[in-house]
Amino acid sequence: MSKRYAVIMAGGRGERFWPRSRLQHPKHLLPIVGDKPMLAQTVERLDGFIPRENIFVITNREQHDAVVSVCSMLPPENVVSEPMGRDTAAAVGLATVVIKHRDPQASLAMLPADHVIQDSKGFQSVLDTAFQAAEKEPVLVTIGITPTEPATGYGYIHRGDELFDINGRTIYRVQRFVEKPNLQTAKQYLDSGEYFWNAGMFVWTAETIAAALEDHTPSLYRGLTELESGLRAGRSLEELLDEVYPTLDRISIDYAVMEKAGNVVTVESDFDWDDVGSWPAVARHFKGDDHGNTLRGAALVDGGEGNIVISDKDHLLAVCGVDDLIVVHAGDATLVCPKDKAEKIKGLVKKLGDDPRWKSLL
Amino acid sequence: MSKRYAVIMAGGRGERFWPRSRLQHPKHLLPIVGDKPMLAQTVERLDGFIPRENIFVITNREQHDAVVSVCSMLPPENVVSEPMGRDTAAAVGLATVVIKHRDPQASLAMLPADHVIQDSKGFQSVLDTAFQAAEKEPVLVTIGITPTEPATGYGYIHRGDELFDINGRTIYRVQRFVEKPNLQTAKQYLDSGEYFWNAGMFVWTAETIAAALEDHTPSLYRGLTELESGLRAGRSLEELLDEVYPTLDRISIDYAVMEKAGNVVTVESDFDWDDVGSWPAVARHFKGDDHGNTLRGAALVDGGEGNIVISDKDHLLAVCGVDDLIVVHAGDATLVCPKDKAEKIKGLVKKLGDDPRWKSLL
Repeated sequence: MSKRYAVIMAGGRGERFWPRSRLQHPKHLLPIVGDKPMLAQTVERLDGFIPRENIFVITNREQHDAVVSVCSMLPPENVVSEPMGRDTAAAVGLATVVIKHRDPQASLAMLPADHVIQDSKGFQSVLDTAFQAAEKEPVLVTIGITPTEPATGYGYIHRGDELFDINGRTIYRVQRFVEKPNLQTAKQYLDSGEYFWNAGMFVWTAETIAAALEDHTPSLYRGLTELESGLRAGRSLEELLDEVYPTLDRISIDYAVMEKAGNVVTVESDFDWDDVGSWPAVARHFKGDDHGNTLRGAALVDGGEGNIVISDKDHLLAVCGVDDLIVVHAGDATLVCPKDKAEKIKGLVKKLGDDPRWKSLL
Repeated sequence: MSKRYAVIMAGGRGERFWPRSRLQHPKHLLPIVGDKPMLAQTVERLDGFIPRENIFVITNREQHDAVVSVCSMLPPENVVSEPMGRDTAAAVGLATVVIKHRDPQASLAMLPADHVIQDSKGFQSVLDTAFQAAEKEPVLVTIGITPTEPATGYGYIHRGDELFDINGRTIYRVQRFVEKPNLQTAKQYLDSGEYFWNAGMFVWTAETIAAALEDHTPSLYRGLTELESGLRAGRSLEELLDEVYPTLDRISIDYAVMEKAGNVVTVESDFDWDDVGSWPAVARHFKGDDHGNTLRGAALVDGGEGNIVISDKDHLLAVCGVDDLIVVHAGDATLVCPKDKAEKIKGLVKKLGDDPRWKSLL
């Protein structure tokens, strides 16, 4: 039996795709790019590499039923739901406890649920290298995405010394993680060839990450050991989570562990990758019309260029005499926002949530 | 019994208010400004001046039932429906025949169905002057709207000599009608004090307009005499219209009569008037928010100024980071168009009508 596992982190709220995405129906449950929900595509991307009984999904209770339904190819007990959000370190810890309980020798890949990767074979090959590295040495492996442009929307990984080679791929020590840079800095990163995008994909053994959590975030680790001993005592995971989860520190795995640990390494990707974090990013995956408008569903642009107009099939969005606008209709709400202000959508959604009149539309 | 009649012309398609207005539900059937449909407001504006049994509405067969329903205060037989559009001269002719058949001594006011006039008393007073002029002399009276700005969207009436006074108001001969001017010319018109806006409101006796139609558009007049003799023979109006209407010339009353006749006079208005011909014009009648946004129904602007956002109460339009946009949601369609391109909406609606996918949305 394979000792390799995948854990797909599917807890995001997907505010940036409102109104198509909603609180209970975020981006990973939608076919934002492609015909299936992003989460289903993420599961299927592992076909032939990780057996389905070894694929877990971490989500939250609001989304539990929807996730189980989208992941009907997985055993339903592999969908693990947090009672509340406690940031990514807690989610990683939860995954570690659950999988270690099943298989103390397990190695696992932590994967985001909503990215676009067309080259599944290339993806699996890089993951295989990362697994081999993690199984060979007690290291925390991050996948370093080869940057294709001086993007300012991602964090970067600065690689250090070469450690060893696997399958012709170099494993580098990580010198440091850096926050989203400005454009000038991003250009320097790109030119240097020493920086990768941080896609939030990690591979490690359960043992190595457990040790790292114990070292770098001991209070969180104490909570996790409570979970672990509860499971060993035969108690239900749900009941244990209700008890323990509220006590866990809210901290990201990057801050808690990756930026502190000395045993972080990276393997460079050679597959296509896009986190499609916004409507303009989505539009890149569709063929535009002759005027660069991206039209989905009942959508029409009369005298305008570069618009993204996304509707249902039974509601016409008619856009007239304007350029570079995002117009998205979904059910009981329609969004209108310039493409170059797409980052404001998140703030808009927050405002909706604060207003009793609109709260139900999240 | 009063010999004064009013004929409200309610045949417009209201493309400029799509998607709120539809083919079968144009502007005059909607409460575009105010709480009641514009047509109902137009009828009620005559309260105490023209008895309701003397108020007629000319519409078309598609809108017949909706008009009867909106005009429930009128005898249903006063709603006369053209079997097809034949421009305004035919509509005036039809009204003349129908009213002359009832009362050969009638005088009548022809009124648009969808204008905004708040000062009903002032309106009635000017109409009364116009009726007196038309009853005193065989003249075709137009109401000249006092211009308040150098508007380029209206035709103008250039007044000529003073003819006589009624109730302290001067009746002028009309020197000429002029088409929509450019801004420079419009400014000259405004400065001269000799020009009025042509609001398409006319007052005349049935006898005088019949004679004018006979003189200036004899072929149309022949069709009208057929209608008249058919009515006199006791045949049904509907049947007669089916026979005669398709044969009538398509020509406007302005071209056919007003610009040619020598007996056209004008009386200057002193009431407020707005034809609210576009969404930006509508917005002038509503109080904006602190950022000059006009919001109706479930509408929200986050970081934007001067937008017109009109929705139903159960569909949120959320506009973010953009200025001076018109966004209108109605049922199965939403329009997005910059305010300064509002005149393009008509062309958009034409395109929708030409496309089998969208035709049903008109």
